[in-house]
Amino acid sequence: MVFPDWLARYQRKNLGSDLSAGAIVAILVMPQSLAYALLAGLPPQAGLYASILPVLVYAWFGSSMRQAVGPVAITAIMTYSVLSPLAPPGSAEYIRLAALLALYTGVLTLGFGIARLGFLSQLLSRPVVSGFISGSALLIVISQLKLLLGLHTEAGNSWQSLAALAQHLGQAQGATVLLAAPALGWLLVSRYLLVPLLVRKGVAAASAQVAARVMPLLVLLLATLVVAHFDLDRTAGVAVVGRVSAAAALWQWVQPSATNLLFLSTPALILAFIGAVQNITMAQALAAKRRERIDPNRELIGLGAGNVLAAFSGGMPVGGGLSRSAVNVMAGAQTPLASMAAALTTLLIVLLGTDWLARMPLAVLAASIVVAAISMVDVQAFRQAWAYDRADALALLGTAAGVLLAGIQVGIALGIGLSLVTLLVRASAPHIAVIGRIPGTEHFRNVERHGVETLPEALFLRIDENLFFGNLNAVEMRLAAELAKDVRIQDVVLIMSAVNRIDTTAMEMLADLNRDFAERGIRLHLAEVKGPVQDRLLRSPLWAALSGQVFQSVHAAFEALSAPQHAPEFHI
Amino acid sequence: MVFPDWLARYQRKNLGSDLSAGAIVAILVMPQSLAYALLAGLPPQAGLYASILPVLVYAWFGSSMRQAVGPVAITAIMTYSVLSPLAPPGSAEYIRLAALLALYTGVLTLGFGIARLGFLSQLLSRPVVSGFISGSALLIVISQLKLLLGLHTEAGNSWQSLAALAQHLGQAQGATVLLAAPALGWLLVSRYLLVPLLVRKGVAAASAQVAARVMPLLVLLLATLVVAHFDLDRTAGVAVVGRVSAAAALWQWVQPSATNLLFLSTPALILAFIGAVQNITMAQALAAKRRERIDPNRELIGLGAGNVLAAFSGGMPVGGGLSRSAVNVMAGAQTPLASMAAALTTLLIVLLGTDWLARMPLAVLAASIVVAAISMVDVQAFRQAWAYDRADALALLGTAAGVLLAGIQVGIALGIGLSLVTLLVRASAPHIAVIGRIPGTEHFRNVERHGVETLPEALFLRIDENLFFGNLNAVEMRLAAELAKDVRIQDVVLIMSAVNRIDTTAMEMLADLNRDFAERGIRLHLAEVKGPVQDRLLRSPLWAALSGQVFQSVHAAFEALSAPQHAPEFHI
Repeated sequence: MVFPDWLARYQRKNLGSDLSAGAIVAILVMPQSLAYALLAGLPPQAGLYASILPVLVYAWFGSSMRQAVGPVAITAIMTYSVLSPLAPPGSAEYIRLAALLALYTGVLTLGFGIARLGFLSQLLSRPVVSGFISGSALLIVISQLKLLLGLHTEAGNSWQSLAALAQHLGQAQGATVLLAAPALGWLLVSRYLLVPLLVRKGVAAASAQVAARVMPLLVLLLATLVVAHFDLDRTAGVAVVGRVSAAAALWQWVQPSATNLLFLSTPALILAFIGAVQNITMAQALAAKRRERIDPNRELIGLGAGNVLAAFSGGMPVGGGLSRSAVNVMAGAQTPLASMAAALTTLLIVLLGTDWLARMPLAVLAASIVVAAISMVDVQAFRQAWAYDRADALALLGTAAGVLLAGIQVGIALGIGLSLVTLLVRASAPHIAVIGRIPGTEHFRNVERHGVETLPEALFLRIDENLFFGNLNAVEMRLAAELAKDVRIQDVVLIMSAVNRIDTTAMEMLADLNRDFAERGIRLHLAEVKGPVQDRLLRSPLWAALSGQVFQSVHAAFEALSAPQHAPEFHI
Repeated sequence: MVFPDWLARYQRKNLGSDLSAGAIVAILVMPQSLAYALLAGLPPQAGLYASILPVLVYAWFGSSMRQAVGPVAITAIMTYSVLSPLAPPGSAEYIRLAALLALYTGVLTLGFGIARLGFLSQLLSRPVVSGFISGSALLIVISQLKLLLGLHTEAGNSWQSLAALAQHLGQAQGATVLLAAPALGWLLVSRYLLVPLLVRKGVAAASAQVAARVMPLLVLLLATLVVAHFDLDRTAGVAVVGRVSAAAALWQWVQPSATNLLFLSTPALILAFIGAVQNITMAQALAAKRRERIDPNRELIGLGAGNVLAAFSGGMPVGGGLSRSAVNVMAGAQTPLASMAAALTTLLIVLLGTDWLARMPLAVLAASIVVAAISMVDVQAFRQAWAYDRADALALLGTAAGVLLAGIQVGIALGIGLSLVTLLVRASAPHIAVIGRIPGTEHFRNVERHGVETLPEALFLRIDENLFFGNLNAVEMRLAAELAKDVRIQDVVLIMSAVNRIDTTAMEMLADLNRDFAERGIRLHLAEVKGPVQDRLLRSPLWAALSGQVFQSVHAAFEALSAPQHAPEFHI
């Protein structure tokens, strides 16, 4: 087993802050852990179990100093959306499937890390990731509405859920709404208004942050006390967590079956991919603030190992959590020892018993999920992308809409597709300039922007893009248009100073063009071909067949073609 | 209805060659039409029907002067692979589904043309198209082997087919093999050896071509006569075309049903896409030889209308055919009038009756398909791609293997995926150079290749690639590595002369980098930012926050940073 760097170099002075941060994190994120487990369709204590062994193993193998892993909203809603069609949420079969999914996801993530595939997380652009998170957050909000209203509607996608809610709105439970509405209101206030308010009243910013972070826990405890005191669960039908099912034990062997593995392979791959992207993105953001560096592949190994252990301790998949890490940083964590301390504190809580969970009202847990989810909707990212680049903004919107309307898997596939198609569409409209010489110099510029001299019988065209299958049509059309403008043209010089690659399709197109031009009595020349491009072209049929010359510089081409007596003879 | 240009400007002198070319084409491609109909799982005369109305409508609407459409191998095998799991090939239900598929494909293609989406055919690189065609051709060869051997094995994919054949090889029918083997041998000889042989014997090249093209028809007629004379179908069990089913009439109404439309939507989309790519590619190749231009969108409209009519006249989808067009060119066609003449000749043949088809041996038709398919396998393209660009060669091979092992739809999806991923992977490793000044000049070059002077406290980095989500990691890593080499660096100048676009993710990364650098006391400067890139950056948060300057030229940056007294003050 690898002994982690940070532990070998551990500085005694950090011990105090790490241990206290750990204890604070364990207590503050508890409501979140319970709520996300419910969101995933698992018994709430599964969220606590997942905060023990997976956290320890990530602390050991991961590379981030301050990222905290644990149950997170995105993986929770993904787990629910994958498994709820397969088994009734909360049932023993469901828990078994969740454990299997976590195991599968963990093994895949671990494999990616060992194979050093961390760079694949680049497949998603930031707008797509942002759209995905915002869409998922809205999906989460919609999924919690029925709990807030005390309804029992079952529905497939988000529209059907909303329609069912609207239809049954009259049957909303008074007591549940009376409990949930003030909780929701207060949580929203404490999230968005409390800190500025306290700061304005003279409270130190750090203390104000702590006060705001403690709120969810206080609200939940208070609500549980209210339920217990007024017997709301028995007399007014308020749904509570209830007796904890024995199915989700702290350590439980999971037997994979071939059928399930086959069926779960696509969801596991998506979960692993999204988990990896989220973890690496966040770890990088946290590391950048302290000028530390993370290793994407070690992140994958830590996260993968964490999920493998999660499979055996409750089945709740884990990930790098935004609010969890924020609490960790706020509480003063310096190294992963803080996470280890948090894991041990959670273990202590679990060992002391989870019976107090029984009368916790689901509606108030739902309220805490809704508040967390609302904060994940990033309108600012959309506005910024819209101002900067419409195509990216549309990719963001498309991904979010895909997640909302067609589900998480379709949404992510759509996002990757949109990223790649945007890339292709952009590269398919290359910038091409006809250039001429600034009189008396060796400088060449776009004829449309500068007063330059040109040669009547030679066309100098600079292509500012790599040539590949997607942009050949544009190049061919432009060439045809330029040649149509002036019938005197006998030489075409393609300036390749901005061309870093020519793929096979483009090379074949150039060979076709060269042959076509030769038949029309036009020579094709190349200028400023980069070294690696030239090495490749030497192995192609184009090189031997080229009707014109290859010039080192545009200047050399201009000189040669402006002195007809020196021009090379024309060979077909 | 649009009156075609070519008809409005028709030159009397072309009439003779067009009419004779039409008659020749109609007769020479007949065996092909019958064979491809069988390949598609349809009654053979469907191939003749599809050569009448669809050909007329394409001649009217299309833009290519010499491309001939009709039943083609690729769409035939695709039709078979889509529909054979749904209904028994040749049955009335199968024919109905085929017609529906042709209708659907036609409407989609027509829609693409009207929406001017012809440019989408660029989504496939030439290696991928080549791999797709070669893989499909091998699939076709495998599908015909059982007919050559007179076996009746039914199997799913190509491996299962081959395994089943190997298992039942002992039951091969003597008479069928005796008929098929010499036919196959003679067709191969006439395809690959006859023309050079005749030319060497002094026959004119054009006449030799005609002789080679006539062979399939002669072989088929001869084989039919042999079967009829020796009663091989009744006495020796040689499979023949048999009585023509009445189900495929010359004109038949097709009633679309919602269920079928839903089910057929993916195959229809793929068929439309592949048909469009094949048609446009070939039309461009044919047009280039005579310096004509084609209009991709008009091609789609012609092809789409052709397939809509194909749905109502036998159900066999049509496409732009390589050998069909080659025969058309060889026979001297000048305008689409030749295709119209061919269509009318075929109509005449059909009206005279198709009873003579009854005793045509399937094995010999299969032999003609095999020979055509073998010529579609393009080993040269693979060899050339391998020499030029391994990644493209692997994309070719992957597509071909996908088609062979997992079927046509998976193959084409794999091909598109490989095209895009290759594009992404390439762009994710950008060329980045540290540059310095050639002493005494205003020229700047790569420090690794030229003797240049640099500034100790300034790093000049030229990024030779558009910045987008896929290559940021590489840029960040390179920057970190360069900064780690020299702790004195206080200014980083990014030279953007080769950067034509910066997407949202990249802009955000630059903003992060700028903030990160500022915290470390390093200024970030930009130089030679292109006009369109600058316009966009002006709308981004990066512009206002930039800690350094934006220089018009590298020279200006070098001058400013080498004169400390002139260096701008440092603002965070």
